[in-house]
Amino acid sequence: MPETRKQKYDDAALRRLTPEDLDALEIGAGILGTGGGGNPYQGKLLVLEAMKAGYEMKVLATDAIEPDALCMSIGGIGAPVVGVERIREGREGLRCLRAMEELIRTPIDAIVCEEIGGANAMNPLVTAALGGLPILDCDGMGRAFPEMQMTTFSIYGHSSTPSVMCDLHGNAVIFSHAVSEVWHERMARACVVAQGGGAMLATAPMQAHYVHQYGIPKSFTKAIALGEAVIRARKAQEDPIAAVCALEGGRRVFNGKITDLKRHLRGGFVVGDMELAGFDDCSGQTANVAIQNEFLVFRRDGVIEVCVPDLIVLLDVDTGYPITTEMLRYGQRVAVVAIPCHELLRSARALDVVGPAAFGYPDITYSPLPARGQRAA
Amino acid sequence: MPETRKQKYDDAALRRLTPEDLDALEIGAGILGTGGGGNPYQGKLLVLEAMKAGYEMKVLATDAIEPDALCMSIGGIGAPVVGVERIREGREGLRCLRAMEELIRTPIDAIVCEEIGGANAMNPLVTAALGGLPILDCDGMGRAFPEMQMTTFSIYGHSSTPSVMCDLHGNAVIFSHAVSEVWHERMARACVVAQGGGAMLATAPMQAHYVHQYGIPKSFTKAIALGEAVIRARKAQEDPIAAVCALEGGRRVFNGKITDLKRHLRGGFVVGDMELAGFDDCSGQTANVAIQNEFLVFRRDGVIEVCVPDLIVLLDVDTGYPITTEMLRYGQRVAVVAIPCHELLRSARALDVVGPAAFGYPDITYSPLPARGQRAA
Repeated sequence: MPETRKQKYDDAALRRLTPEDLDALEIGAGILGTGGGGNPYQGKLLVLEAMKAGYEMKVLATDAIEPDALCMSIGGIGAPVVGVERIREGREGLRCLRAMEELIRTPIDAIVCEEIGGANAMNPLVTAALGGLPILDCDGMGRAFPEMQMTTFSIYGHSSTPSVMCDLHGNAVIFSHAVSEVWHERMARACVVAQGGGAMLATAPMQAHYVHQYGIPKSFTKAIALGEAVIRARKAQEDPIAAVCALEGGRRVFNGKITDLKRHLRGGFVVGDMELAGFDDCSGQTANVAIQNEFLVFRRDGVIEVCVPDLIVLLDVDTGYPITTEMLRYGQRVAVVAIPCHELLRSARALDVVGPAAFGYPDITYSPLPARGQRAA
Repeated sequence: MPETRKQKYDDAALRRLTPEDLDALEIGAGILGTGGGGNPYQGKLLVLEAMKAGYEMKVLATDAIEPDALCMSIGGIGAPVVGVERIREGREGLRCLRAMEELIRTPIDAIVCEEIGGANAMNPLVTAALGGLPILDCDGMGRAFPEMQMTTFSIYGHSSTPSVMCDLHGNAVIFSHAVSEVWHERMARACVVAQGGGAMLATAPMQAHYVHQYGIPKSFTKAIALGEAVIRARKAQEDPIAAVCALEGGRRVFNGKITDLKRHLRGGFVVGDMELAGFDDCSGQTANVAIQNEFLVFRRDGVIEVCVPDLIVLLDVDTGYPITTEMLRYGQRVAVVAIPCHELLRSARALDVVGPAAFGYPDITYSPLPARGQRAA
């Protein structure tokens, strides 16, 4: 078992999450999930369960921990739609943490969220809490993406192996070495499909200075603020969708009703697309949204307007609540909101991994949404 | 790196294999492979390559090593048909050995052959030779089987995890813990399919006394003797098929021409079946052989006569050479030979794992072939 080390951060810098924070995080993570990352509601139940048992969810700024602190990124792997029907056992992440510490024979200092979008905002909180560790206020995607090599940590050079994957049955697999990040993804994906479609996976630890430099900053703070904005707007009977757009530089690009929906499981992923018929200011227009776990491409009347890695978010037109891919239904009335992604996802290096071509759209050239405060040309 | 330990066996007890032994082993392993286990010819080339480079293939009786010696069983995993088109890199097994020693922080004393049938008779020889270790004269199947939980080691209670799987690309996966032997197989199989259909897998080490008690004894000696019998008969222009039957208590049950052949890849396995039209003493009869990597069930005119775990072997009617599933061709003239399996595969415990029901034939009751020296009732 790992020896005890000097604590690498100041307790005073911790933000302890409350149940109200979790309600807001549920909504915010759903928005940033752009349809994917798993259902945050069920993840929240696991966090609340841990909270009731006396565990604390401690969020820490990435610069409030010593630069050499050892940080382990973790997330759920599998098809979101599986998570809806099969609840996690709850200690998968803790088993990953302990197996990783055993493997590298060094204690971990902090947990990092692989992906702030969807249930993966919640899962790492449980791991951190059960392990008595803080979770850093950042993540590896700033949204949700369907594959593991799509984290900024991998994109900017961190090798994600050795990694540890634990499922609810009690199986534990170590991906000891992968010749590339994509090979790692390929092997882990095949394995998780065999395990029934869902598991937790912890990647090779990073030092805190690397996480600070390459993580998408303030993910928990931003997600909670987004959720609070929706809750506040609803209470004040204001437009929750406008509140979302105001916070993250988003733009409401479409109002429509789902008129056609194709969605199926392929190789552990949810893939498909949907058609929307516009109403209100979009009356007479049609739109199409392509899905691969997340919403990838938004087309209006056949013309691409928004594409990955920028965020395409579907919100219930009345409540402002985010709609994940597995919750899509024929006839739903939705607002499509486009949110610019973080600069770290827009470099040539990042676009090679998370640009349209990486998702099977070699003909689409990524044209960045105007960032917050900027105006479209 | 592991420390050096006292050698646990007497060098004088070693049988050093010659290139002639390998020629015989190629044929014998092919016979015991009952159609599966991969093509032993290509495995032989890798062994010869190592031999030319000065490595020794040292076979050791299971009682010639100290009972507490640490023995690691290893074999190739994947679809045999893939092995025909994609040659191993050659050091996958050595990487498994070193990764295992690193994982358990103890040096391995000897290598064990997971499966004597097919290429898996050859692969562990390369691992043992490159690692400077002896290989025990036994194996975990006494033939070939398609799945990992089908070794006598697993059947009689050894847990095969933690295991290490290495592919030709350089990927390494550790199955740290599996909740059952079947779960281990399921995860490793999914992973090897993702790796392109072939890899080497080393299972959790066993002590020599366990290997001595539950391994199928004298596998290398028997396989080499079988091959020598075929070679000798051919030189003497005698019937090689009779020579095979004489050694292992086999019975020539059919002479026929392949008139129909269905064979495809499913989930990493070769599955299918073939029809035979009899000639010579079988003229006017038909036969059917079912395949799942190996030959599983032999039917004459629709009636089951031989089934797994007894060995169903197809030999070229003229040369006596064994025919593996991927070498089957329309029009081939074959002799079907039935060989009784070892007693360790006939217990109720074994039949649960390797009996007809385990292969999807719940209605077939296993009726043992008469063993050597016995007569049918």
